[in-house]
Amino acid sequence: MKRNINLTMLMDFYELTMANGYFENGMKDTITYFDMFFRRIPDGGGFAIMAGVEPLVEYLRDLSFDDEDIAFLREKNIFCEEFLEYLRNFKFSCDVWAVAEGTPIFPGEPIVTVRGPAIEAQLIETMVLLTINHQSLIATKANRIVRAAEGRPVMEFGSRRAQGYDGAIYGARAAYIGGCVGTACTISERDHGIPATGTMAHSWVQMFPTELDAFRAYAKIYPDSCSLLVDTYDVLKSGIPNAIKVFDEVLAPGGHRPKGIRIDSGDMTYLSKKARKMLDEAGYPDCKIIASNALDEYIIRDIIMQGAQIDIFGVGERLITSRSEPVFGGVYKLVGVEDENGEIIPKIKLSENIEKITTPGFKQLWRLFDNESGKAMADVISLHEEVIDGNAPYELFDPEHIWKRKTIENFTPRPLLEPIFEKGKCVYKERTVEEIRNFREASVDELWAEVCRFENPHKYYVDLSQNLWDIKNRLLVKK
Amino acid sequence: MKRNINLTMLMDFYELTMANGYFENGMKDTITYFDMFFRRIPDGGGFAIMAGVEPLVEYLRDLSFDDEDIAFLREKNIFCEEFLEYLRNFKFSCDVWAVAEGTPIFPGEPIVTVRGPAIEAQLIETMVLLTINHQSLIATKANRIVRAAEGRPVMEFGSRRAQGYDGAIYGARAAYIGGCVGTACTISERDHGIPATGTMAHSWVQMFPTELDAFRAYAKIYPDSCSLLVDTYDVLKSGIPNAIKVFDEVLAPGGHRPKGIRIDSGDMTYLSKKARKMLDEAGYPDCKIIASNALDEYIIRDIIMQGAQIDIFGVGERLITSRSEPVFGGVYKLVGVEDENGEIIPKIKLSENIEKITTPGFKQLWRLFDNESGKAMADVISLHEEVIDGNAPYELFDPEHIWKRKTIENFTPRPLLEPIFEKGKCVYKERTVEEIRNFREASVDELWAEVCRFENPHKYYVDLSQNLWDIKNRLLVKK
Repeated sequence: MKRNINLTMLMDFYELTMANGYFENGMKDTITYFDMFFRRIPDGGGFAIMAGVEPLVEYLRDLSFDDEDIAFLREKNIFCEEFLEYLRNFKFSCDVWAVAEGTPIFPGEPIVTVRGPAIEAQLIETMVLLTINHQSLIATKANRIVRAAEGRPVMEFGSRRAQGYDGAIYGARAAYIGGCVGTACTISERDHGIPATGTMAHSWVQMFPTELDAFRAYAKIYPDSCSLLVDTYDVLKSGIPNAIKVFDEVLAPGGHRPKGIRIDSGDMTYLSKKARKMLDEAGYPDCKIIASNALDEYIIRDIIMQGAQIDIFGVGERLITSRSEPVFGGVYKLVGVEDENGEIIPKIKLSENIEKITTPGFKQLWRLFDNESGKAMADVISLHEEVIDGNAPYELFDPEHIWKRKTIENFTPRPLLEPIFEKGKCVYKERTVEEIRNFREASVDELWAEVCRFENPHKYYVDLSQNLWDIKNRLLVKK
Repeated sequence: MKRNINLTMLMDFYELTMANGYFENGMKDTITYFDMFFRRIPDGGGFAIMAGVEPLVEYLRDLSFDDEDIAFLREKNIFCEEFLEYLRNFKFSCDVWAVAEGTPIFPGEPIVTVRGPAIEAQLIETMVLLTINHQSLIATKANRIVRAAEGRPVMEFGSRRAQGYDGAIYGARAAYIGGCVGTACTISERDHGIPATGTMAHSWVQMFPTELDAFRAYAKIYPDSCSLLVDTYDVLKSGIPNAIKVFDEVLAPGGHRPKGIRIDSGDMTYLSKKARKMLDEAGYPDCKIIASNALDEYIIRDIIMQGAQIDIFGVGERLITSRSEPVFGGVYKLVGVEDENGEIIPKIKLSENIEKITTPGFKQLWRLFDNESGKAMADVISLHEEVIDGNAPYELFDPEHIWKRKTIENFTPRPLLEPIFEKGKCVYKERTVEEIRNFREASVDELWAEVCRFENPHKYYVDLSQNLWDIKNRLLVKK
């Protein structure tokens, strides 16, 4: 299936009706500010993992409407010809900032900020959200699962249950950023450098007259990467004994060691303990036990607590769809408009639901690190031009309960929103997926253990600077 | 973002290690039979909706490995050169049958059957599953939501929360097949003919000095498709009164009627009742009320029961990710192998979990319709060459409780597995998405209401023919 597709038109239709509206209303050059932020951490976790920036960069870099797009829009009979001409000559000219992939992120924080002409900033809404929402969702879930495995490698096995082709391909990328060691998805290695591995399905075993024949044939062809699926008929009565027989007969004479056995059904704790004992007694203590049956962070944590002897986890549908919580609810909201003098008028979206109220203005996001422990103490959202000085005491306060105050010293502030486009020019610094993965590991290590807890984690502080709080409060009171 | 991608390599790596294994083991021409089936209907529903066949056809029709793929595989250092050469000259030669898109399907039924050389049938596993799983999941969920809306149109609004680009694009297609009337996703209209619509976001309202200014500007530009978002500040105090003012001042003088107002937050029942009253009293009983806030089939059913005055539902994240159950667990299993005489040796996969046991053999799936009511009475899985004769009495029996028997007469059998490839040649009859959608509607109407119930639906009968049951039982007993 050769897919040759220009994704520019992957936009909600209302972005086009609004864009045409701004155009006809003489507002196409009005400079706007939009923030992407999310409201809730999936699975009740203590933090999420930012992902998707690089694919977003690719999209923004290539943004253009081709003749087919224009012809399609013309047929809708609601757009003026001048607007279509404008789209034909469209050139992206916005400034864009984003939090680096792999960074822990928290609700309410601007994780992408766009500054530019109303039409442009509006037209990219869907792709900003779709890209960051999907990949942050999967990176966050993968990181939960990886942390539950306590150092044991976790493989991403879910392509067949992903929600669409990109769900599998980019899902494997996000899972790797989140901490998985590899994927079953071959194309994700070819295109994104995510290590892909795999051995056999039940069908391999069924294709031969007996399980023993199937194992023998596999071991002969792959003596150095021999990993056998042992649950086609009966793990303990036939799978493991046959595997050991083949390790002895086929591998041992040539000096090869088996890589592993995989169990894909049944009780993982019970079976893995028995399997470990059988393999050890047969002289294969180095043979890994791989488990892959409807796993997620809860089951992995449970079976590890029960002493399951599993060395590697293969996690499929519950990772690739983030089954327990398959939506990362990021939103993209107007937070400011420049007037004719270039002054920023902050904008707020009110709501009956308190958490749906936006934080207005052009902003920066800071993470403050304790110099002694190296740990992140709090994030502060400030106005964009504000600078937080690590050499002076800084007073934090809870933006909802403002009497809760605390002055910190001896800390290092780090701005998290980095420019990725400047006046439409890409200034994103490419990083390998390996570098992003390492950065994620280091960045999660900067969080206190209390924030990383699975249940009822400590709520990490995300505060507003006094200046920003004043603006927000003024707009709230005014309405 | 121009994506130019060959999806051939979207396969689990184990399909390649097995394929190379079959090749090296002299089994590449062994004829195999594989079935795709699923085990459980999402959300405890009474049936699922088949979808994804056309994209699967596209994939199979184009299946080829390019130089980049071969070079990539060679670098893995585990495939023999002859196998790589085989892949370079790969030509799909399988027979494939599939249940038509839009058909209600049930657990355990073969919905795709593949017959062909072991390597070929194995290599397509991931894409068969990924394509059918994703689209059937969304079509099934959409159909639940559409049925809950009881005739009120449902729009698909979820692109921004989809799991990847294809999740949005093909998700809109599946949602349309399931019964949605359209989508917000522009590219899905351009590429798949799914009607796309949209009006404004909150940002439009915020861009103007006042809500009234924003509504006025919109109404002037779109007098014939004027639909206003009324919850940016306060639905009842400002949104609706401002909308009515604009309908009166801008639309009425030119003889235009408003299309609708949209409410995106707050209590839908309360707000829609109040809004309906205000609009009616102002002389706009024809102005539709559109609701779009975290909806799904349960909420829609509830608010309709409470008398909500909503004419159109926009459903986002809970539809496009099938949030309450985001996995359609279809599997692809070996069910038979031909011996050197061309005789089919049926294959079974056993398991501790009864529902994981497969039904062996090369099969056909039948739906039996009662001639009087036109309703579907039961499905029967038979051997492929068996013919169920509608002119003779037919004895159905429960495959697990075989004493439960029933003889039916006066029925019409319809085979559901249709050929889509014959010896690698595509014989799929293209249908428009409109035709598929209509077929889905007619096919769901053929089910008894009891099967369509949301909670505890009547379990539709899926039986085995006596011949097939005998084979399965023989294999079960033998092991």
